[in-house]
Amino acid sequence: MTTIPSKAEMTAAILQAKQRLGLKWAAIAQAAGLSPVFVTSACLGMNSLAKAPADQLAAALELGPEISAALQEFPHKHWPEAIPTDPVVYRFYEMIHVYGDTIKALIHEEFGDGIMSAIDFDMAISRQPDPKGDRVRIELSGKFLPYRSW
Amino acid sequence: MTTIPSKAEMTAAILQAKQRLGLKWAAIAQAAGLSPVFVTSACLGMNSLAKAPADQLAAALELGPEISAALQEFPHKHWPEAIPTDPVVYRFYEMIHVYGDTIKALIHEEFGDGIMSAIDFDMAISRQPDPKGDRVRIELSGKFLPYRSW
Amino acid sequence: MTTIPSKAEMTAAILQAKQRLGLKWAAIAQAAGLSPVFVTSACLGMNSLAKAPADQLAAALELGPEISAALQEFPHKHWPEAIPTDPVVYRFYEMIHVYGDTIKALIHEEFGDGIMSAIDFDMAISRQPDPKGDRVRIELSGKFLPYRSW
Amino acid sequence: MTTIPSKAEMTAAILQAKQRLGLKWAAIAQAAGLSPVFVTSACLGMNSLAKAPADQLAAALELGPEISAALQEFPHKHWPEAIPTDPVVYRFYEMIHVYGDTIKALIHEEFGDGIMSAIDFDMAISRQPDPKGDRVRIELSGKFLPYRSW
Amino acid sequence: MTTIPSKAEMTAAILQAKQRLGLKWAAIAQAAGLSPVFVTSACLGMNSLAKAPADQLAAALELGPEISAALQEFPHKHWPEAIPTDPVVYRFYEMIHVYGDTIKALIHEEFGDGIMSAIDFDMAISRQPDPKGDRVRIELSGKFLPYRSW
Amino acid sequence: MTTIPSKAEMTAAILQAKQRLGLKWAAIAQAAGLSPVFVTSACLGMNSLAKAPADQLAAALELGPEISAALQEFPHKHWPEAIPTDPVVYRFYEMIHVYGDTIKALIHEEFGDGIMSAIDFDMAISRQPDPKGDRVRIELSGKFLPYRSW
Amino acid sequence: MTTIPSKAEMTAAILQAKQRLGLKWAAIAQAAGLSPVFVTSACLGMNSLAKAPADQLAAALELGPEISAALQEFPHKHWPEAIPTDPVVYRFYEMIHVYGDTIKALIHEEFGDGIMSAIDFDMAISRQPDPKGDRVRIELSGKFLPYRSW
Amino acid sequence: MTTIPSKAEMTAAILQAKQRLGLKWAAIAQAAGLSPVFVTSACLGMNSLAKAPADQLAAALELGPEISAALQEFPHKHWPEAIPTDPVVYRFYEMIHVYGDTIKALIHEEFGDGIMSAIDFDMAISRQPDPKGDRVRIELSGKFLPYRSW
Amino acid sequence: MTTIPSKAEMTAAILQAKQRLGLKWAAIAQAAGLSPVFVTSACLGMNSLAKAPADQLAAALELGPEISAALQEFPHKHWPEAIPTDPVVYRFYEMIHVYGDTIKALIHEEFGDGIMSAIDFDMAISRQPDPKGDRVRIELSGKFLPYRSW
Amino acid sequence: MTTIPSKAEMTAAILQAKQRLGLKWAAIAQAAGLSPVFVTSACLGMNSLAKAPADQLAAALELGPEISAALQEFPHKHWPEAIPTDPVVYRFYEMIHVYGDTIKALIHEEFGDGIMSAIDFDMAISRQPDPKGDRVRIELSGKFLPYRSW
Repeated sequence: MTTIPSKAEMTAAILQAKQRLGLKWAAIAQAAGLSPVFVTSACLGMNSLAKAPADQLAAALELGPEISAALQEFPHKHWPEAIPTDPVVYRFYEMIHVYGDTIKALIHEEFGDGIMSAIDFDMAISRQPDPKGDRVRIELSGKFLPYRSW
Repeated sequence: MTTIPSKAEMTAAILQAKQRLGLKWAAIAQAAGLSPVFVTSACLGMNSLAKAPADQLAAALELGPEISAALQEFPHKHWPEAIPTDPVVYRFYEMIHVYGDTIKALIHEEFGDGIMSAIDFDMAISRQPDPKGDRVRIELSGKFLPYRSW
Repeated sequence: MTTIPSKAEMTAAILQAKQRLGLKWAAIAQAAGLSPVFVTSACLGMNSLAKAPADQLAAALELGPEISAALQEFPHKHWPEAIPTDPVVYRFYEMIHVYGDTIKALIHEEFGDGIMSAIDFDMAISRQPDPKGDRVRIELSGKFLPYRSW
Repeated sequence: MTTIPSKAEMTAAILQAKQRLGLKWAAIAQAAGLSPVFVTSACLGMNSLAKAPADQLAAALELGPEISAALQEFPHKHWPEAIPTDPVVYRFYEMIHVYGDTIKALIHEEFGDGIMSAIDFDMAISRQPDPKGDRVRIELSGKFLPYRSW
Repeated sequence: MTTIPSKAEMTAAILQAKQRLGLKWAAIAQAAGLSPVFVTSACLGMNSLAKAPADQLAAALELGPEISAALQEFPHKHWPEAIPTDPVVYRFYEMIHVYGDTIKALIHEEFGDGIMSAIDFDMAISRQPDPKGDRVRIELSGKFLPYRSW
Repeated sequence: MTTIPSKAEMTAAILQAKQRLGLKWAAIAQAAGLSPVFVTSACLGMNSLAKAPADQLAAALELGPEISAALQEFPHKHWPEAIPTDPVVYRFYEMIHVYGDTIKALIHEEFGDGIMSAIDFDMAISRQPDPKGDRVRIELSGKFLPYRSW
Repeated sequence: MTTIPSKAEMTAAILQAKQRLGLKWAAIAQAAGLSPVFVTSACLGMNSLAKAPADQLAAALELGPEISAALQEFPHKHWPEAIPTDPVVYRFYEMIHVYGDTIKALIHEEFGDGIMSAIDFDMAISRQPDPKGDRVRIELSGKFLPYRSW
Repeated sequence: MTTIPSKAEMTAAILQAKQRLGLKWAAIAQAAGLSPVFVTSACLGMNSLAKAPADQLAAALELGPEISAALQEFPHKHWPEAIPTDPVVYRFYEMIHVYGDTIKALIHEEFGDGIMSAIDFDMAISRQPDPKGDRVRIELSGKFLPYRSW
Repeated sequence: MTTIPSKAEMTAAILQAKQRLGLKWAAIAQAAGLSPVFVTSACLGMNSLAKAPADQLAAALELGPEISAALQEFPHKHWPEAIPTDPVVYRFYEMIHVYGDTIKALIHEEFGDGIMSAIDFDMAISRQPDPKGDRVRIELSGKFLPYRSW
Repeated sequence: MTTIPSKAEMTAAILQAKQRLGLKWAAIAQAAGLSPVFVTSACLGMNSLAKAPADQLAAALELGPEISAALQEFPHKHWPEAIPTDPVVYRFYEMIHVYGDTIKALIHEEFGDGIMSAIDFDMAISRQPDPKGDRVRIELSGKFLPYRSW
């Protein structure tokens, strides 16, 4: 039996196949029957897929079963930079700090003491046409988890 | 003429008045004619208000003109923790790192090389009813800014 | 109406009353009808109490309603040291790093991809008699939260 | 005589054999006659085994004596991230900081000035069935070590 | 189809060709029809070029289409040192900190609350003859982006 | 003789006087006979003035000789944040890292091995009208300093 | 009942009394019936004393019972500098890093896998006369704690 | 003439030979005519040996003259972790911080203003039998160096 | 008996007296019978003086015996910034890193394995006239300390 | 045409040739017609040489023109450790912090507001015979650069 590739090798194989076949992330996601954000994150090694979507995704990219196996591995979520440097990602880091206490205040006022889950959570990204320049629209939804007292 | 209070003094005065009057952030925002997220962030010292909404907000909280003046000051946006510790805010920090490259890939595929603005930007927070437990819904919208080549 | 004391002022008042009355954390917890770990953490400013246990706790310590109000405030959970220095706490930090990947491997094998919640969570601490020297016993229980795919 | 593999090479060989033979950590631990947590940590390179369990473990995984020798080596316990990023491990890091002073207060009240050992120490992880969602149960026990005065 | 080289491989190939052909950055920029600063930054892997200038640049350096393809890739902008050490770059880091609040005060006084864009932005570097020693002249221009209130 | 105020006290006094008199930085600079950037930096405590401009500046702000004396003190240039957080200043920090190697390459090609001085240095900030949105224009000029070999 | 002073207030009172009475640490330690190293560390707030030595120490320094009470408090062992700067302390930090792996190798070879306790531990400091210059002699002794397997 | 191996290559060769010949550090040290602590540190690359002990050590381990040459090289003393993570070494790091000011106070009281040298320095490690569990004994001796005034 | 002022209070008193009396550091040093560098460092709290020079220095500045006592205290040498920011000091930090390995190589070649002492050490600063611009001349001298082998 | 070696490859080649030929740094410097400090720093990759001394240096070491070319490259001055660990270099780091404010005070008093250049700068290292133990003498000279006001 073949060794399962690492997540980094899997990502490299997927990106090469994606480029060779001229596929967009939306098309790859559709093949897996899941959303573009989740499927992209799985292809970049930050989430795992169940067997069925992993097999379908590998097939759509004309890749072998070892890529499906790698997609099913539970990832170690590591990042090398505590403060992201790429401007696309830094702007979100900045928002989190500028609006962090605001988000906390509004969640607490509406829901009580607790948090928005980062596990039972989904996200969508879309283009929002605007005559003054199109906008990026990001929608997040996470289950409210109240602190348990015991 | 009186000295303008610091942002920290302004926030303390607003939080005390809010509690005394039993007002919610949504009501305070309505008085200012702006959204709850933006108004809360201004009250917490991370954004400035124009004169009209600042005056209306101070009036609604039965606070004097020095609070309106403080709300109009352009803030220094500082935060003491590079990595937030409060669980509400940390979960967003975690999302940014887990999904950062995903967001970058999807923005680039849809829009080309550029970023989503953190300046020409808005956010809304709402409750999303769900039988398995209500969810926090966060909607972000920022202008796409293409890198300029020259 | 009186101002609500800060969490630090509340903790100082509680520790002084506890010493004056010669009460143990277990007795204070019993007065609040909750467990010693949770009640101690609330008294140290890291959790909030609902109105009833907060009132009972303040009464048991012969403290006024402003302490009950402070106990009901939703805390900002901050800590000044990324790596704890006190030996009691450092030893747990060390365990987390020595056994972190082990815990991850065993949770994943038993439950699949997901985490143990730090929100829907409880902890108990007790003395475990042992002829070679008594032991500290700590029991943690947290809801398993599977990663959502969407 | 052959060179002893490094701990990293040993772990890779064990994980491959484990996957090939379809063994769970519990079964591997049983072969070594020790608990799953301790054996997993030794296989991941963070603890050493005595000769007998190391030989039994290598045999159960159909691996050679060089793997047994590597399991017997005393490890250097290093970790690259002062603050863990993987959400499974981070949640424990968060608990340590939220409940650190609470644990310290309760240990001191019960035992006096001293610490819970991270060396004379054991841990168990199990599934706790719960109709609202099964829970992860973690039990720690460490010898209380009083500070010596001299 | 060939694999697109990484940005690091692309930069190495460009620097070797530049040296072999004895070309200056100004000449390479002219071939691409863009400014020296922007073209140099693209060659060093910190910006992307559109297809036409990338093809022209590769041709001027007698490099193949895979270099043009690499120039068109959208870069990940990472830097390894939060505080630069090379004296040329450190001096700019120092200026930013010495004059940061000054720049902020003057922009705010002239334009109101907002920032100078680092995306819709250009820069030029030139020699400024001076009898007491020639000077380096750097001109930056960035679009003013007012904070949006909503 | 009176004690010289600290730089922080001096800045506070200047900002209050500036607000009370409704003066702009350009007007204050004109009173001192120097440029707005340099004078603002001196008022914010990051540079010193000679006696004549310090006296003129204090007089223009209707402040006493102790403010002139404080302006003449040689400052300790400290900053609390290695990575600036305010978006106005961060964008410049980002530019320095994105374009640092580019600036180094172009200075070296034009001037040889050496640096642009941050001491024998000046800066101007102005508004650059633009139909697509006015721009901030920043001009820096620093003496080229060749490395000495000996 | 009086409030117990903080460890910092206690240390200040002890140092003042020590200076006023012209006592050496050795004499203070003798009054407490313990060693100079341990007693000094307790006076500096890094260890606690039992009631008898605390009372004797306070009496010897002509200080009140509140100082004895403060000496009996269990300290939070915090230090502000991860890397000590004072040369006396830094030299020990340097030794730990230069000889750390050596100490580990020699302990492991002599005792097996385990550590030297920092809790069941003592230290003595003395002058070692030497014609080439007197030497500081430091003797440490800590219980060997073998790692427990379970 | 052959190239001198790096310190890391030298250490690997020594550890392999030590294991192959079944030698203890004490025996290797005896062959070199020096103490176990110093010789171990030299073998681990943190000190250099003079020619005679280096030759004797290499001969005792049946290694060639290139290992003797490497032992004679003056090392660069680097360590990757400012705060050690391995528990054996961390415990010493902790002692340094808990007892640092105590050591400083006692050295100053006995010797005056100055430090204990980390250069003109020696260390011994031994087993101290104890019915309650054997102890690790560490003896340090360093020349007192008074600060020079001039 | 009066309390001895802290080093910070002592420095403030000395700087005020120095300004009031119009004295230069050289004159103050002469009064103490020591060099300007050493005396300035003692006045800034980074070294201690013996009784005679401390008394002479206090007398020359018309300050009381408590300042002499403070000058005789052995300082804790702390600095808040691991990387200095003030340009005067940073330039020396930069030199240390640019020339650190060079200094090490030349000391080792001349003296063997060892260091230059930072304790048995002196420094002088002077003006070196130069037609192209006067220069700062700094002379350091420290005892060579050979590593001891044992 | 051959590729120019990296600075690291160049340094390795120079050190090997230096050892093979038994040359001292002083002799190599003499061959280049420059001082030992500057030439050593160039050989270690932290400075560049002009063509003539580079050619002479390569010839003296019997190395090819590619080493001369590498010596002429303008280096990127990077260092991996913000705080040096090797004791030789750390002692200088310590001096910079202990005497940094002293140096600043004395330069400002003698020269006015400005810095000592780290670019127009030279250094010499020599042996200073002393009956109590020879000393390392280091002489630094850097041009005073006054801050420009504009």
